[in-house]
Amino acid sequence: MSDMKIIVQKYGGSSVATTERIKAVADRIKKYVENDYRVVVVVSAMGKTTDGLIKLSSEITDNPDKRELDMLLSTGEQVTIALLAMTLHTIGIDAISYTGSQVRVMTDGNFSNARIQSISTDRIMASLRQNKVVIVAGFQGIDEEENITTLGRGGSDTSAVALAAAIGTRDCEIYTDVDGVYTADPRVIENPKKLKEISYDEMLELARLGAKVLHSRSVEFAKKYNIRLIVRSSFNYEEGTVVMPMEEMMEKFIISGITAKSDEAKVTLRNVADRPGVAAMLFGKMGEQKISVNMIVQSTGADGKASISFTVLKSDVKKTIDICESLKNELGGTSVDFKENIAIVSAIGVGMTSSYGVAGRVFRVLAEHGINIEMISTSEIGISCVIDPKYVELASKVLHAEFLEK
Amino acid sequence: MSDMKIIVQKYGGSSVATTERIKAVADRIKKYVENDYRVVVVVSAMGKTTDGLIKLSSEITDNPDKRELDMLLSTGEQVTIALLAMTLHTIGIDAISYTGSQVRVMTDGNFSNARIQSISTDRIMASLRQNKVVIVAGFQGIDEEENITTLGRGGSDTSAVALAAAIGTRDCEIYTDVDGVYTADPRVIENPKKLKEISYDEMLELARLGAKVLHSRSVEFAKKYNIRLIVRSSFNYEEGTVVMPMEEMMEKFIISGITAKSDEAKVTLRNVADRPGVAAMLFGKMGEQKISVNMIVQSTGADGKASISFTVLKSDVKKTIDICESLKNELGGTSVDFKENIAIVSAIGVGMTSSYGVAGRVFRVLAEHGINIEMISTSEIGISCVIDPKYVELASKVLHAEFLEK
Repeated sequence: MSDMKIIVQKYGGSSVATTERIKAVADRIKKYVENDYRVVVVVSAMGKTTDGLIKLSSEITDNPDKRELDMLLSTGEQVTIALLAMTLHTIGIDAISYTGSQVRVMTDGNFSNARIQSISTDRIMASLRQNKVVIVAGFQGIDEEENITTLGRGGSDTSAVALAAAIGTRDCEIYTDVDGVYTADPRVIENPKKLKEISYDEMLELARLGAKVLHSRSVEFAKKYNIRLIVRSSFNYEEGTVVMPMEEMMEKFIISGITAKSDEAKVTLRNVADRPGVAAMLFGKMGEQKISVNMIVQSTGADGKASISFTVLKSDVKKTIDICESLKNELGGTSVDFKENIAIVSAIGVGMTSSYGVAGRVFRVLAEHGINIEMISTSEIGISCVIDPKYVELASKVLHAEFLEK
Repeated sequence: MSDMKIIVQKYGGSSVATTERIKAVADRIKKYVENDYRVVVVVSAMGKTTDGLIKLSSEITDNPDKRELDMLLSTGEQVTIALLAMTLHTIGIDAISYTGSQVRVMTDGNFSNARIQSISTDRIMASLRQNKVVIVAGFQGIDEEENITTLGRGGSDTSAVALAAAIGTRDCEIYTDVDGVYTADPRVIENPKKLKEISYDEMLELARLGAKVLHSRSVEFAKKYNIRLIVRSSFNYEEGTVVMPMEEMMEKFIISGITAKSDEAKVTLRNVADRPGVAAMLFGKMGEQKISVNMIVQSTGADGKASISFTVLKSDVKKTIDICESLKNELGGTSVDFKENIAIVSAIGVGMTSSYGVAGRVFRVLAEHGINIEMISTSEIGISCVIDPKYVELASKVLHAEFLEK
């Protein structure tokens, strides 16, 4: 099939929210067909459909069986694929829709958060060869017993990337309601810049640290299979941002994005024994309870005692404190305290690895504006600082000005 | 599996119209489970769901691709099965839902009006053995290429009967919003009687001649596989009507029902040659165009010329006239005329076959009330008369009084 020019496109819920919006999507697909592309389309459920289905379920129970919830929710995407196929027919484009089951999107059996294991491309390739636009329901798959599964948050993005990988095509366009990845949240920074390119790792850091454009799992998948993710808006024809391998990027900024988040709290376990295995035991226990930890800082005093500070989602604070209290004696700690009134501001960029003094510049800029840093953690491509939430906007602005507006 | 007491139950759209109604259905199922039944449930889409889906489709096109329409509409039943399974869980009943695809409801590829060819009972029996209530989406199946198909009008009834046949259980309860089959339409006759039993053939005649309780295809299926259909209301616990083999019926009425319909028109082709093959050619041509003909009467005059009168749906009159005109010369006919202002009143009953003079009584009763009969046709178990629509209520009443109120 090397003679076919194939592209995978994914349209999110806002892009297919109404039949009017679906018509706009069909027009866009038509342009690609007219340019000799064979198009594979992945769609989400229409705008509020999923909410409507969840409401029905919640009229029955707060704790629905996950298999049945997946059975219910997967209908949302099935409605969209049928409507989009009909719409393409009305403008003279041949198209065919497939459920996850029909193209064998095989997943594990982890209902509501399943992982894709394989996809069969037989039907898809046969339909492409017949010059049909192929429309696949995102977010859904089946396990080996043919139970319907769903992929959890950002699932349709993952479906699209997995399809691109299975088909062996390089480019996967992700259509959403923003036209790319920006250097900062436009609600905070007045004129953030749209990035032409960003590396997988930066995108992952941005997602982890507060950006909501793409879900981490789809980016990890894209990285693994070397798929170029092109983030674009279905509401205009702007170019968008390409998420791609760092080595292929034309231009690397030292810092490519500033993010801020305030949904986490800081927990500190004081004066634990400074011996191997302490952190492993603590964070192992938290992992077992599915608490994800973001920043971790350990400092050791002259007395051979250590303090461990870390941040977790505010909703996980109670469980976290319980774990710390239960381990306190064993670890030799003296006290557990927490602070919910914090924010985390982060600067992210692959250029950091090859530039000196970036951390120093971050700290200096914050200090110059009287912003105290309560906790610092760095990764290869990011620096995060815990600060007082009242400074979060100021910190974002001055860091953006320092690194991205000069 | 002879040790399991299995029953198949089908709940129509009005029985599952809201989550409240679904709860009532779950309570009913629970009673069966508590009485050691293994229950297989077939459900339709919730009340107005199908209408909502059709509205979405009609926003796009008046003539949707039938494959895609089936893809769209089949989501309705999938929503219901998931919600009913969740509801059963909340009252402590283990249950599992299956789509048509998951239990291999194999059909032909005739989208929107597919016919069931086979059902695999492996998953169903395995789940029943695990003491689970099995919930199957009605109205839907898949063709051999795994395209989703739907069964057309009354499709969920057919699904239920086919399941009963595949499982090898005798009884299939059809829950609807009326509690059985009545001797007449309660909107016309004040106190029609509910029949305890009715034969397949009578039920088919009733359906053909205007009764709307069961769709013909499901009754044909039940007859073929010797399944007892028990028509009951999901809104009360009345006994309902059993549709069953005539030989097993305890009591056979001469007439078991009076029906009336006024959606047909009468067409007459006059003075055609009275020779073999004339009717075959005319009705063959109409069959090709999928026009279904109800009553047919042919009369031959002394001159060796015949007139053929028949009734078709009013919506088919134009096509019918065109066919008659195109064949008129070939058949030697002199004129084609039609009359839309007619009604058909029918008396149906298996007892007719073993009783003399039933037809005579029908004609006498109508004559006594001044009702002129424009056309008569009889079958083994029914007598139909074309009359002026203004007399349809009176005719129904006097026939009901004559045969069913004495």
